[in-house]
Amino acid sequence: MTKPQEAIDPAAVTVIGFDADDTLWHSETFFALTEDRFRALLAPWCAPEELTTRFLDRERSNLALFGYGIKGFTLSMIETAIEASEGAIPTGAIQQIIDWGKEMLAHPVDLIDGVEATLDAVTPKYRIVLLTKGDLFHQESKIAESGLADRFEAIEVMAEKDPATYRRFLASIGVEPSEFLMIGNSARSDVLPIIEIGGQAIQVPYEITWGVEEVDGDASWPVMRSISDLVPLLDESVSPAR
Amino acid sequence: MTKPQEAIDPAAVTVIGFDADDTLWHSETFFALTEDRFRALLAPWCAPEELTTRFLDRERSNLALFGYGIKGFTLSMIETAIEASEGAIPTGAIQQIIDWGKEMLAHPVDLIDGVEATLDAVTPKYRIVLLTKGDLFHQESKIAESGLADRFEAIEVMAEKDPATYRRFLASIGVEPSEFLMIGNSARSDVLPIIEIGGQAIQVPYEITWGVEEVDGDASWPVMRSISDLVPLLDESVSPAR
Repeated sequence: MTKPQEAIDPAAVTVIGFDADDTLWHSETFFALTEDRFRALLAPWCAPEELTTRFLDRERSNLALFGYGIKGFTLSMIETAIEASEGAIPTGAIQQIIDWGKEMLAHPVDLIDGVEATLDAVTPKYRIVLLTKGDLFHQESKIAESGLADRFEAIEVMAEKDPATYRRFLASIGVEPSEFLMIGNSARSDVLPIIEIGGQAIQVPYEITWGVEEVDGDASWPVMRSISDLVPLLDESVSPAR
Repeated sequence: MTKPQEAIDPAAVTVIGFDADDTLWHSETFFALTEDRFRALLAPWCAPEELTTRFLDRERSNLALFGYGIKGFTLSMIETAIEASEGAIPTGAIQQIIDWGKEMLAHPVDLIDGVEATLDAVTPKYRIVLLTKGDLFHQESKIAESGLADRFEAIEVMAEKDPATYRRFLASIGVEPSEFLMIGNSARSDVLPIIEIGGQAIQVPYEITWGVEEVDGDASWPVMRSISDLVPLLDESVSPAR
């Protein structure tokens, strides 16, 4: 699955940015587990496949107001539950949905295999930064709990991972996009905007992709199977003749 | 209400920080209006005063998980509604609560009188930064919509306004606490932590204070009635002999 190494020019890189959710630690699995429970809860009123569609539509339409994170996810579940049950969902089930949201917020941070060794290995050679999006309060809680905070020169929780926001962040740390390599699970958030501003990026897909993050078409950017592939890729890559 | 001017030493100040919600623009009024509607909605099941107490307790207990902002406020209203009605609240009323939350999130930014003139007046003489807390996505939306973003040298949405977070922020912009003056409506968030780290602060109380932000005892720090008092205060203040 790892694309040809010549796609990356490690000689240009001075700063590596890491996404957090589903790149450094597990996240989408908890959303997916909660959605499984949500489908089961609503099964008396709505077929699972239909609920999945309704819920994704609801999440998409709420995104401009709610942004990312578990609180918006929870509110979207409640709205979908009321709508899909035509109001018949009992209030106990609504409290259950809120309790799932709280459980997710309180869930311990679970690092993905290979993360610590990879950070150890790149730190002597590169400056590293953490760039995540989502709910500020919850992201900061997870960063603190992860024990990784001290390893990063800068940590930025972004409201949206778009080219303008990346450009602003890189300017704030005095780094040119051409010196920057971003590592993350989402093509839409971690790869495409970086390529657009003239940086480099490698996607490390997570086992599950949230519908909102899905992009059409095959990857035309570097992809690796595991974060543990990063160090060999940087070490062995040869800059293409240009 | 403005305290003796000698409480402030403007000669030491090079950077002024402004809080946003209830300092630059109205915010708590919208929360208070929604709470009025919430009390009316729940009136068939719970006396207004009791609901107020229950809701504040619920907000306080949810704070460590939810942090600040409208989404957490909305979820806390739903939980309080289910609990205070012993589950009897209809799902239509729960959707109503969510719609109020969305209305608040979509509400246009309404600048407080005197804000623009004050920023105009201090900008030539001082560096200014914006330091707010709450929901990152919504705060950034409001900052963008306010039209004020370009005036600030730095804008920081903080998960919590505590001494450590202020200290980190000031270090990141290379400013000593002793050169820093913070302006904000909340004694708990904008004044006390700044004084603790050795900076200066002036409180500009807003017409309403959220229960969670209330502090006991009389103000022993500089207070002004309106943000329009800032420029005269800075101009006329005389450094006390030390």
